[in-house]
Amino acid sequence: MNRPLRILVLHGPNLNMLGLREPEQYGTQTLQDINTAIIGFVSNLSYDVSVDCLQTNHEGSLVERIQQTHPHFGKGIDGIVFNPGAYTHTSIAIRDAILASGTPVVEVHLSNVYAREEFRHRSMIADVAVGKIVGFGLDSYLLGMKALIRYIVNKNSQ
Amino acid sequence: MNRPLRILVLHGPNLNMLGLREPEQYGTQTLQDINTAIIGFVSNLSYDVSVDCLQTNHEGSLVERIQQTHPHFGKGIDGIVFNPGAYTHTSIAIRDAILASGTPVVEVHLSNVYAREEFRHRSMIADVAVGKIVGFGLDSYLLGMKALIRYIVNKNSQ
Amino acid sequence: MNRPLRILVLHGPNLNMLGLREPEQYGTQTLQDINTAIIGFVSNLSYDVSVDCLQTNHEGSLVERIQQTHPHFGKGIDGIVFNPGAYTHTSIAIRDAILASGTPVVEVHLSNVYAREEFRHRSMIADVAVGKIVGFGLDSYLLGMKALIRYIVNKNSQ
Amino acid sequence: MNRPLRILVLHGPNLNMLGLREPEQYGTQTLQDINTAIIGFVSNLSYDVSVDCLQTNHEGSLVERIQQTHPHFGKGIDGIVFNPGAYTHTSIAIRDAILASGTPVVEVHLSNVYAREEFRHRSMIADVAVGKIVGFGLDSYLLGMKALIRYIVNKNSQ
Amino acid sequence: MNRPLRILVLHGPNLNMLGLREPEQYGTQTLQDINTAIIGFVSNLSYDVSVDCLQTNHEGSLVERIQQTHPHFGKGIDGIVFNPGAYTHTSIAIRDAILASGTPVVEVHLSNVYAREEFRHRSMIADVAVGKIVGFGLDSYLLGMKALIRYIVNKNSQ
Amino acid sequence: MNRPLRILVLHGPNLNMLGLREPEQYGTQTLQDINTAIIGFVSNLSYDVSVDCLQTNHEGSLVERIQQTHPHFGKGIDGIVFNPGAYTHTSIAIRDAILASGTPVVEVHLSNVYAREEFRHRSMIADVAVGKIVGFGLDSYLLGMKALIRYIVNKNSQ
Amino acid sequence: MNRPLRILVLHGPNLNMLGLREPEQYGTQTLQDINTAIIGFVSNLSYDVSVDCLQTNHEGSLVERIQQTHPHFGKGIDGIVFNPGAYTHTSIAIRDAILASGTPVVEVHLSNVYAREEFRHRSMIADVAVGKIVGFGLDSYLLGMKALIRYIVNKNSQ
Amino acid sequence: MNRPLRILVLHGPNLNMLGLREPEQYGTQTLQDINTAIIGFVSNLSYDVSVDCLQTNHEGSLVERIQQTHPHFGKGIDGIVFNPGAYTHTSIAIRDAILASGTPVVEVHLSNVYAREEFRHRSMIADVAVGKIVGFGLDSYLLGMKALIRYIVNKNSQ
Amino acid sequence: MNRPLRILVLHGPNLNMLGLREPEQYGTQTLQDINTAIIGFVSNLSYDVSVDCLQTNHEGSLVERIQQTHPHFGKGIDGIVFNPGAYTHTSIAIRDAILASGTPVVEVHLSNVYAREEFRHRSMIADVAVGKIVGFGLDSYLLGMKALIRYIVNKNSQ
Amino acid sequence: MNRPLRILVLHGPNLNMLGLREPEQYGTQTLQDINTAIIGFVSNLSYDVSVDCLQTNHEGSLVERIQQTHPHFGKGIDGIVFNPGAYTHTSIAIRDAILASGTPVVEVHLSNVYAREEFRHRSMIADVAVGKIVGFGLDSYLLGMKALIRYIVNKNSQ
Amino acid sequence: MNRPLRILVLHGPNLNMLGLREPEQYGTQTLQDINTAIIGFVSNLSYDVSVDCLQTNHEGSLVERIQQTHPHFGKGIDGIVFNPGAYTHTSIAIRDAILASGTPVVEVHLSNVYAREEFRHRSMIADVAVGKIVGFGLDSYLLGMKALIRYIVNKNSQ
Amino acid sequence: MNRPLRILVLHGPNLNMLGLREPEQYGTQTLQDINTAIIGFVSNLSYDVSVDCLQTNHEGSLVERIQQTHPHFGKGIDGIVFNPGAYTHTSIAIRDAILASGTPVVEVHLSNVYAREEFRHRSMIADVAVGKIVGFGLDSYLLGMKALIRYIVNKNSQ
Repeated sequence: MNRPLRILVLHGPNLNMLGLREPEQYGTQTLQDINTAIIGFVSNLSYDVSVDCLQTNHEGSLVERIQQTHPHFGKGIDGIVFNPGAYTHTSIAIRDAILASGTPVVEVHLSNVYAREEFRHRSMIADVAVGKIVGFGLDSYLLGMKALIRYIVNKNSQ
Repeated sequence: MNRPLRILVLHGPNLNMLGLREPEQYGTQTLQDINTAIIGFVSNLSYDVSVDCLQTNHEGSLVERIQQTHPHFGKGIDGIVFNPGAYTHTSIAIRDAILASGTPVVEVHLSNVYAREEFRHRSMIADVAVGKIVGFGLDSYLLGMKALIRYIVNKNSQ
Repeated sequence: MNRPLRILVLHGPNLNMLGLREPEQYGTQTLQDINTAIIGFVSNLSYDVSVDCLQTNHEGSLVERIQQTHPHFGKGIDGIVFNPGAYTHTSIAIRDAILASGTPVVEVHLSNVYAREEFRHRSMIADVAVGKIVGFGLDSYLLGMKALIRYIVNKNSQ
Repeated sequence: MNRPLRILVLHGPNLNMLGLREPEQYGTQTLQDINTAIIGFVSNLSYDVSVDCLQTNHEGSLVERIQQTHPHFGKGIDGIVFNPGAYTHTSIAIRDAILASGTPVVEVHLSNVYAREEFRHRSMIADVAVGKIVGFGLDSYLLGMKALIRYIVNKNSQ
Repeated sequence: MNRPLRILVLHGPNLNMLGLREPEQYGTQTLQDINTAIIGFVSNLSYDVSVDCLQTNHEGSLVERIQQTHPHFGKGIDGIVFNPGAYTHTSIAIRDAILASGTPVVEVHLSNVYAREEFRHRSMIADVAVGKIVGFGLDSYLLGMKALIRYIVNKNSQ
Repeated sequence: MNRPLRILVLHGPNLNMLGLREPEQYGTQTLQDINTAIIGFVSNLSYDVSVDCLQTNHEGSLVERIQQTHPHFGKGIDGIVFNPGAYTHTSIAIRDAILASGTPVVEVHLSNVYAREEFRHRSMIADVAVGKIVGFGLDSYLLGMKALIRYIVNKNSQ
Repeated sequence: MNRPLRILVLHGPNLNMLGLREPEQYGTQTLQDINTAIIGFVSNLSYDVSVDCLQTNHEGSLVERIQQTHPHFGKGIDGIVFNPGAYTHTSIAIRDAILASGTPVVEVHLSNVYAREEFRHRSMIADVAVGKIVGFGLDSYLLGMKALIRYIVNKNSQ
Repeated sequence: MNRPLRILVLHGPNLNMLGLREPEQYGTQTLQDINTAIIGFVSNLSYDVSVDCLQTNHEGSLVERIQQTHPHFGKGIDGIVFNPGAYTHTSIAIRDAILASGTPVVEVHLSNVYAREEFRHRSMIADVAVGKIVGFGLDSYLLGMKALIRYIVNKNSQ
Repeated sequence: MNRPLRILVLHGPNLNMLGLREPEQYGTQTLQDINTAIIGFVSNLSYDVSVDCLQTNHEGSLVERIQQTHPHFGKGIDGIVFNPGAYTHTSIAIRDAILASGTPVVEVHLSNVYAREEFRHRSMIADVAVGKIVGFGLDSYLLGMKALIRYIVNKNSQ
Repeated sequence: MNRPLRILVLHGPNLNMLGLREPEQYGTQTLQDINTAIIGFVSNLSYDVSVDCLQTNHEGSLVERIQQTHPHFGKGIDGIVFNPGAYTHTSIAIRDAILASGTPVVEVHLSNVYAREEFRHRSMIADVAVGKIVGFGLDSYLLGMKALIRYIVNKNSQ
Repeated sequence: MNRPLRILVLHGPNLNMLGLREPEQYGTQTLQDINTAIIGFVSNLSYDVSVDCLQTNHEGSLVERIQQTHPHFGKGIDGIVFNPGAYTHTSIAIRDAILASGTPVVEVHLSNVYAREEFRHRSMIADVAVGKIVGFGLDSYLLGMKALIRYIVNKNSQ
Repeated sequence: MNRPLRILVLHGPNLNMLGLREPEQYGTQTLQDINTAIIGFVSNLSYDVSVDCLQTNHEGSLVERIQQTHPHFGKGIDGIVFNPGAYTHTSIAIRDAILASGTPVVEVHLSNVYAREEFRHRSMIADVAVGKIVGFGLDSYLLGMKALIRYIVNKNSQ
């Protein structure tokens, strides 16, 4: 595969509040900081990768953005680094959209959800994702990006 | 009642992906195929029925479309054939909209949800619907349309 | 396939009490009325279909009637429209008989079981049936018959 | 604090149907009636208070309106009287938005949710709200407004 | 009402083993002893009562005997003293038969089921019976007979 | 045993409200009516029986009255007909008092608790009682008295 | 209705410890302060209202005080503002007393019980109360008083 | 003991379908093959053993056949090799019949029920049986026969 | 601290029945024996300790006695050795009283509650006590006294 | 296959205590007796079989002994008769070792675990074993050996 | 009994970390300090007692050390003061070893496990121990030693 | 900090079987391959890092290796990349060792545990780890190493 990889970074509800929102839990970086860091990280990789970033608070909008990565829509998204936020724990619709798109997804979380409320321990998405990275702040995204790219490259080279 | 019946066919999240989405589960028909088949089916009935079709991935939009069938809004929808997709299992808001509208609803599903994951066995909607039809692919819609029309005609003739 | 289809309509426990039994729940039609309506319905179809009707209150008798639809017994039943009544919720033996027979089954219920007691929400049969139709009174049977015939015709034509 | 208080009254899904929706449960007042009553009530208080009212059926829109009350956005909302409707019982995203905003919230319900279905007894929001008022119809809003204003005034005077 | 009352005494599975079966749990009386004692007891009452006794191990047979007490079948059974044995805890079909028949039922048990295995604490029948008498050996039947007759006489005299 | 039997009739919380309290559930008889009926009933028996009646709303008082029936206190109570009311479902202290006293207890209830709220189906007392009688109004007491006397006479004659 | 309203303010177990008890949870006001504030609040209302205040740590005493509000006892209590404290979560006897009295009750709590231990989330009383107010300290009582008076006045004026 | 042992081999519901029924789960042997193999196996033992075989799909018939092994009926059955099929998981009546008969039972299953659906993991019978053998196809019966005979011989020789 | 320690020994419901009550569970010592032994034990300690003993069967009385140990009431109780009996498992009111008093409590039980009924395994009190001693008969009290005194002395010496 | 079969008999924790340990539950045979009996049993078979016996109380040692049966280690173990003792109910590590080794395992238990504590009813191993034999004392091992050998011979001859 | 008592003090996993491990939970004493304190404590008793101390992190080693206290091994351990640490909550093997050894065990814990995570509230050992002491730091061991010695002396003197 | 970081890579039970064990689940790499890859990966980092690798199947050995990373033991391990295998789901002892050591841990898994059996969804370790990486095969270790090093460097630089 000669064309560059194209990765979607998808941020779920309330992630636009980063930096403003409980800093002891989420740190002081803003979502813009995170997106910038991801793009910087990717530009230093030996792979040729482009990144699209999107945040939305609407479950339906997440469903639709994931749907649009289906090859039928010709948009050439190769994989998704996805922090589904609160919808992680409740949304069957997003789970179905991932299954419907066939696009590989890596689930990431900034904070260690297992050290928080019981209802944050369940994920409707983890078993339909390639894998899951939890608890490393911004690094959860960067590691997720790395893991996803290697997953895609491996699959393409088979 | 002399005016034709007017039925709303409402498709929930990810049903716009039909044909693209896991074909072993959902078959190869597209949503457009289904809508066309429904309209064709209705045109062959002895009743005079018109059909509106709508798909949306947004829970709030489903809530609002259902609300608008309330007689107060003067739109003359007599009943709804409704495939709520993933929201079947989680949406109390849609349940409340059905109750608020007073419009008769038939719940339909393409696949046999009882042969799938445990979390698809619960419906927040079934007990406020007239009835439920599960597992017959496109036929779930056609049978649901038939059942709904007969329900409305019976009720009107009482 | 040139020979007519042969469909078994199987009624479980207490359905012989229809018309006598709580009319606000089940209506005033008798089981004989239902059987007559089914036969009338079938005679108007474009398919050539014959119908056998059986009601029994005995779990073991339901098990055995379903077993006898296995091709080994040479009886040529192509499918079953089945209202298992109270055994829906408790009988693993009937479930096993369906699996053992290999005969396609459509589960039907007169009333909306989801609007009744919690213990009527579980079905031991739904996941081994083709599909399920709930809540339309006599129409549950007629729609189930239609769905089953189309299912069989489709399968045979593959 | 010399400037007037500014309170957001937020109505969740299906509350736009008030007056139309099951009157035995919710009474005959419309949402407009309620908003008018709230504004009238506030104008009679000894505090100088202005009120913004918003109804939406979209979980994401509720999330975003709550986010915008964060001081970062400079809009000067001092507190929220919030009837989350059906999202009370399911939305972790709204819970997170309340936490992210840091704005004090009073949860209100028109009907006595504890006298209704089991699934209406759980609130994802109550433990991150200041308090909760349930069951008094329009008065739930008025009492909630009163409670919230006193809470804010107390906090400001500390 | 001038005709004598007619009461059905119905014994469920394994009650034919009384006297043989674990005597420390059930005593040494046989079922014949119990039936004789019931008939003797009734003959000493001031009411004119006749008694039919039936034991069966078949759930379906219990269902059918209960159905036949429906006035439609013209058999004149005024009420049932019923020891459903093991089917107490599992049979929805028997519950439905009681509802279908409309005949008043008093549930009786020889031993104190609440002092035995957990699965004997649940009754599928108690809430559709008039009442329940547990733990007095033969006296459970005699007291049940008395209670049932008084219930019927009261109802008839209203 | 030559001396007369002495039976305690114990009424738990809210039973002093009989006649006043929800008459559709509990009838129009007062507690005084019930006590009078019990005493009248006993005076017609062939046994020589005296009856003490007590109602209290205090769990601790019930505990103590039951304790005092222990032979150590020399009060000669031979058995208790006990309607523990709401404490049936929650009081381990009363259960322990029954065990500590060694006095035989018959649990009675006016209404059919199994046809009411789920939390009324559990009894902390039934498995340490001789038996249980439920659902026959005043007759629950009279039948319970009869059952208890026969139980005591049998035990004494062994 | 010309006579003044008479409201009972009922405080359950440990509320006599207010001011002494965990001040971070319950504040520094004493129960006497609260009663004084309530009476002061009422004296400023446009309605003519008298207030009785009672605190007790005994479940049975709460049961009896509530019973005595039944019109049969001629005491003229029109409604109860009730903080049942710990008995909120366990007392079926108090629930039954409320039902037996027929007196309207508003349930109030000083602290936000939903932000505390799991076992404080369940109320045995909420569904038989008019409504519930939680989390506003002394204001929970004042708002509850207001809500109750308006409820009674509305009901009386119908 | 000089007389030969007499063992009952009891097959529950759907076992008459062996050979026809899902062969990947149950193999291709028929029930007749199994019975023949058991009889052959027994004829090669050093003990003198006769075998009765019975299959029935009726719970009540299983109950009755087990009852008849009680010594009271003089039929000389020394033990039962029992495959209860689907009734394993639901039948308290069969459990009671085993207890009532006092006859030693060995529970056997052809397939490994623990590798199948969750509802097949529970047995109502295992704790009242001598032991249980699961997963070895026909060998489950032969090993069960061996185990049972040794159990009886040991017991008789004590 | 020069003044002697003052310890309250508090016995809950049914402990006044010791010696009379099931001796195989609780031994033959009376409560008086236990109190005497405790006082004797304390008199032999190197600390100067006085002991108050109280038994009551009333939950409210336990609540109040615990409340009175709050320093506000000036009674100088330094700690409580508490056997809450049956209220251990159900009383949130007693738990709240312990929290409200701020007095250190050691929970003790005569018998090994973990070897008894499931409902005796839960304690509403253990997590607000200093510690818990279970299963050593009278020694549970003596060891609890020792543990409590050392706890108080340590705390005072910090 | 010409070489003799080689079977590992693996005994889990506390089985070295046999003969010493609760004899009413486990009998008086020692582990040495059992091993000797197994070897004697095998020497009388028509197959050429050698037996290795191992007991260990260490979960990790069981894991490792099972791992070493993997063909990679060239040790030629054809199957395992395994009594995992207490680790049956808790060890996922042993389950994983069985899966990792690919060696067929037959699970055996001396006593009837289903007639003991609830926590002994769950097996982490049964669904990855060939089958399970429970309740026949030493015979559980001998029957397990027989079943395993026949399973291996059948598989090898396919 | 003239020979001195011999008591085993057994420390489970991570107790070797005392003093290093979370001091706010477990204090600053090391395990050596605890062992020294126990030996000092015992030397001051009027009984002649010798003490063996052992810590291990291996479940299997705990099992084996407990087994070796069985009289068969002639080692003369009269009882065990046992802090099973984390294995308290999960180890059925240790429970079985206690049962197999027949040696009396007193379960002790340094911290109040009931004030910690939910999974620390269950003990697999408490119901097979003599008793349990929780929450007194080092004193838990000393009190446990005292309780155990008295238990043994009492038993021996019977 | 000038000295190189020292990281422990800890592999739990059955990971020594990699390459041999179910390759469709775990791939064909051996543990040696993984260790080599980790060391190679680390040697290419800009940080100076040394790596220790250890695999063990013994829970107790894992506990002890983790304990030894406590600074008290002077071994200079800065963090642990830990794949606890099956002990993830059951070991409280390992959890306690992590807490006791104070060493930062990153939990890694080769396969996506959320797409496997229900009992693999619970982790006893995740909430005391820094974070968790699941599902990327060898990359789970490499990403975990990266995340851990960055975590340590950040912490050290604060």
